[in-house]
Amino acid sequence: MVGIGNALVDVIAHADDSFLVEHQLVKGSMALIETDRAVELYRDLGSAVEMSGGSAANTMCGVASLGGRAAYIGKVSRDDLGAVFGHDLHAVGVAFRPGTPSPDTPTGRCIIVVTPDAQRTMNTYLGVSSLLGAADLHESTIADGDVLYMEGYLFDRDDAKAAFRRAADVAHAAGRRVSLTLSDSFCVDRHREDFRQLVREHVDILFGNGDELCALYELGSLEDAMEAVRRECPLVAVTTGADGSFVVTSDGTVQVAAEPVDRVLDTTGAGDLYAAGFLYGITSGESLVDCARLGSIAAAEVISHVGPRPLVELRTLVR
Amino acid sequence: MVGIGNALVDVIAHADDSFLVEHQLVKGSMALIETDRAVELYRDLGSAVEMSGGSAANTMCGVASLGGRAAYIGKVSRDDLGAVFGHDLHAVGVAFRPGTPSPDTPTGRCIIVVTPDAQRTMNTYLGVSSLLGAADLHESTIADGDVLYMEGYLFDRDDAKAAFRRAADVAHAAGRRVSLTLSDSFCVDRHREDFRQLVREHVDILFGNGDELCALYELGSLEDAMEAVRRECPLVAVTTGADGSFVVTSDGTVQVAAEPVDRVLDTTGAGDLYAAGFLYGITSGESLVDCARLGSIAAAEVISHVGPRPLVELRTLVR
Repeated sequence: MVGIGNALVDVIAHADDSFLVEHQLVKGSMALIETDRAVELYRDLGSAVEMSGGSAANTMCGVASLGGRAAYIGKVSRDDLGAVFGHDLHAVGVAFRPGTPSPDTPTGRCIIVVTPDAQRTMNTYLGVSSLLGAADLHESTIADGDVLYMEGYLFDRDDAKAAFRRAADVAHAAGRRVSLTLSDSFCVDRHREDFRQLVREHVDILFGNGDELCALYELGSLEDAMEAVRRECPLVAVTTGADGSFVVTSDGTVQVAAEPVDRVLDTTGAGDLYAAGFLYGITSGESLVDCARLGSIAAAEVISHVGPRPLVELRTLVR
Repeated sequence: MVGIGNALVDVIAHADDSFLVEHQLVKGSMALIETDRAVELYRDLGSAVEMSGGSAANTMCGVASLGGRAAYIGKVSRDDLGAVFGHDLHAVGVAFRPGTPSPDTPTGRCIIVVTPDAQRTMNTYLGVSSLLGAADLHESTIADGDVLYMEGYLFDRDDAKAAFRRAADVAHAAGRRVSLTLSDSFCVDRHREDFRQLVREHVDILFGNGDELCALYELGSLEDAMEAVRRECPLVAVTTGADGSFVVTSDGTVQVAAEPVDRVLDTTGAGDLYAAGFLYGITSGESLVDCARLGSIAAAEVISHVGPRPLVELRTLVR
């Protein structure tokens, strides 16, 4: 599997709902922030813990934890956080293809506020991660991967959009499959037509939650959105939190239950790890229902603790 | 309270005992390492989490968490980890006095390997933290503090030794008390005579575990070491892990039980937080037994989770 996304280090802190209100943060969303806002939010937050994140990078770590082989393409800087990001991929056996250096722009970070209800509210200072362009694609790595996995969060700048299309072309030319996660309903709102074109023309496997799918088609009901996407993409996995997930194909729709969790501590990484399990299942020749179950098991592990990557070997857990 | 110590960010990873054997690490100890060794250990370690540490800094955070007022003197660089360290002090209300900048030397870090038995083995790359000298002391802060708390880890270079003596003089001239933690038996071995002189001439309250106290007097029995220290220091708190702690004064010795813990996950910070509770008790006018109990409660909280600083408000816990 080959992932492409925003290479970010997460800065995770706990705060009450009043912190979200005071700082006008929309719970559960991801907001892009500039330096001033990052400084302000970080200053006002309590003690934090730093750990590698980045949606597609989390997914690739999940694939490696399940026993798969994974590579990751994303940009970091030559600073402490860039070193942390590279180390944590290497540590779980994910091959890191960092692209060409862009001096003077720091490694990106995502300030994550975890509220007592375990919801995460993300504020991303993209830094160098958003400068990824077609020149940063390690094309032989993409051509070697069974499935290319791209993160919608990155699909915000024209360079990155061009890189996504180029990456999809490279993968398809090598006979590979292309997958995409919609990542965020606000991101989908900002680039709806581009996303729809990408899905129609390039995507074989689409991931998204209910909100994101509804945003993609500007529809109020998930059922209608699933009908719409069925006509445009051969395989779609839709996550709906505690209600589990739906697998949508031209044959129909199957709902698969979520894996039970004793106590949800931090939902960061839930969608990322669902995609890891699902894609690992796809490349292992599992049935679609079992792919969704693998996704649910991986997601259940990551929401049971603070942090966006598995703390146990998922290959042992799913056995 | 005013703390002085090595300002470090902890890089925490879990590993099996075989990792310690392969890398010739002595379980439970702290080793000072140079750049090459830091690179090698970090490369071979699994996924890590970064969070602020530094023994005396952890203690000051504990004091703040108990409701006390604390300041911290220690050196960081203008890099990502330096920013993390400063933020995490500020976040809990500890006033940070970082001393004069020393460009080109990075912020120090401590690579902590946590084994399945919850023991931590520390490998410290000191970076700029060890460059603290008398010129970095914020003397008006020291004079304002009820108790000065100094970390033996820092007592390794001549500049730092001179800084400790100067800091103690400033505190005593202002009518304040001076406390010291021995930090590490290897550090005590390296500087035994200097430590003994420091204790005799400058220290009102001494902290150490059994090994450290035995190392200080080159004695094989803790009982003998407690007799030796009783003649040289008016108040000594000796931690002995699950066996609790001893409070040694000229009046005698009292043993206080450890606070029970459901499950010990990571012993990092146990001594630091014991000192926080004990000193908070001292400045609040508690009896010595209650000081030791406060220390035990604070230590029990920090060993119940990964990371060297409290995750809950200790003031609520001890109420």
